[in-house]
Amino acid sequence: MKDFRHSHRPKKTTLVFGRKKVIEALQSGIYLDRVYLDKNAAGKDIELIRKLAAANTTPVNYVPVVKLDSFNVTGHEGVVAQKARIKYYELQQVISFIVEKGESPLLLILDGITDIRNIGGIARTAYCCGVHSIIIPDKGVGALNEDAILTSAGALEKIAVCRVGSLVKAVDELHLNGIKVFASEMKAEKNVFDCDFKEPCAIIMGSEEKGIHPVLMKTADVKFKIPMSGDFESLNVSVATGIILFEAMKQRMAG
Amino acid sequence: MKDFRHSHRPKKTTLVFGRKKVIEALQSGIYLDRVYLDKNAAGKDIELIRKLAAANTTPVNYVPVVKLDSFNVTGHEGVVAQKARIKYYELQQVISFIVEKGESPLLLILDGITDIRNIGGIARTAYCCGVHSIIIPDKGVGALNEDAILTSAGALEKIAVCRVGSLVKAVDELHLNGIKVFASEMKAEKNVFDCDFKEPCAIIMGSEEKGIHPVLMKTADVKFKIPMSGDFESLNVSVATGIILFEAMKQRMAG
Repeated sequence: MKDFRHSHRPKKTTLVFGRKKVIEALQSGIYLDRVYLDKNAAGKDIELIRKLAAANTTPVNYVPVVKLDSFNVTGHEGVVAQKARIKYYELQQVISFIVEKGESPLLLILDGITDIRNIGGIARTAYCCGVHSIIIPDKGVGALNEDAILTSAGALEKIAVCRVGSLVKAVDELHLNGIKVFASEMKAEKNVFDCDFKEPCAIIMGSEEKGIHPVLMKTADVKFKIPMSGDFESLNVSVATGIILFEAMKQRMAG
Repeated sequence: MKDFRHSHRPKKTTLVFGRKKVIEALQSGIYLDRVYLDKNAAGKDIELIRKLAAANTTPVNYVPVVKLDSFNVTGHEGVVAQKARIKYYELQQVISFIVEKGESPLLLILDGITDIRNIGGIARTAYCCGVHSIIIPDKGVGALNEDAILTSAGALEKIAVCRVGSLVKAVDELHLNGIKVFASEMKAEKNVFDCDFKEPCAIIMGSEEKGIHPVLMKTADVKFKIPMSGDFESLNVSVATGIILFEAMKQRMAG
């Protein structure tokens, strides 16, 4: 997925602050992980920052001014932003790109998997198995920094990461694009190897502790389990994802 | 594999020292991770310790006396031993046990995978996939302590771990027992899903950095690869093991 690569990436996560500089960053295509806005700030510039952030799908946190002061920068004017280490993509744009290439989308949705090293490890496997894009929520997940990229063995720079405001809405968008949504659930009846992953599909993985959120689970078209021998509770989420994605890849390679 | 459980396990790794105490530990069935012997020590007791350690497959390190002094215990008399957190098994005993139960052995050999958390993670997956036993070398691998057991989600207490002086000799023993040895190798021609894992078999996994040692690789009956889509180098060893073991389990569940 080289076409998704981001060629002029900053060397490390750094801060942009001050209204003018943040506006410039948002306008010039510098990717931001997050914008922190003084919750009491107002004015034309602030309004513009909000609009540009929304257009770039950059999450905005409305915070008390002490949070901004804690960044220890001089002259934040009510706004501090974190430069992103990787580029995030817009979901519809990614789907269109895959379909235009003539491929059948294979997407991975991570719900409640917040540890960035876990996400890195999963990205590595996902890339190996031909996943086009990983969809993560814009809340609760830390910035995908150098550590995450290292754990992914570079895969996070090769795979398109979509950061969305709501996973439920993202599933709506997938459905509108004719993409079937599969969810891994321990108590499902269907086995993973009885699923048809050749069709355009997205697979939701939940965290080991909480599983998939019930509201999101309801949106899934197919629920499946990984059959296990023995009395054991569950696989590590990284290994479970590997097993599922390998099954998908195997089916797709068989044609 | 409850029959392999060790019921009277010490709460944490502790030391046993002094000739008489180490002899008592070896005789009374307290499992030791390792015995450190003064390389210049001699005598009847030392000879007995060596014999008992060999009989229990407990590794012995011959060390300068300063190493023993560094344990900061009073009265080591040339010998200090570490109590084990889990019980180690003798390979032939494990194979006989599996066969007597009427099952087809499924074993996992870890070559050069020295990180105990990695081993813990792999043990978790292995247990889920019905692996009877994990075979590790007695050199280079740290004690399987509380950390390793936590990472394994308890699986290291449920699966039989065999610690052997030589993996090559262990493969000889497997062959004598009619167990086929499979090795994962990136450049192999055969795909993992074209292997027959229903027969009695052992699977060798190498480390991500070094792979399987060439001498050990030569002993393998079948070499196979995990096919990958894309240009990526390799999967994380834990995920790769999961994919392979899941394939084995799937075949075995299908009968």
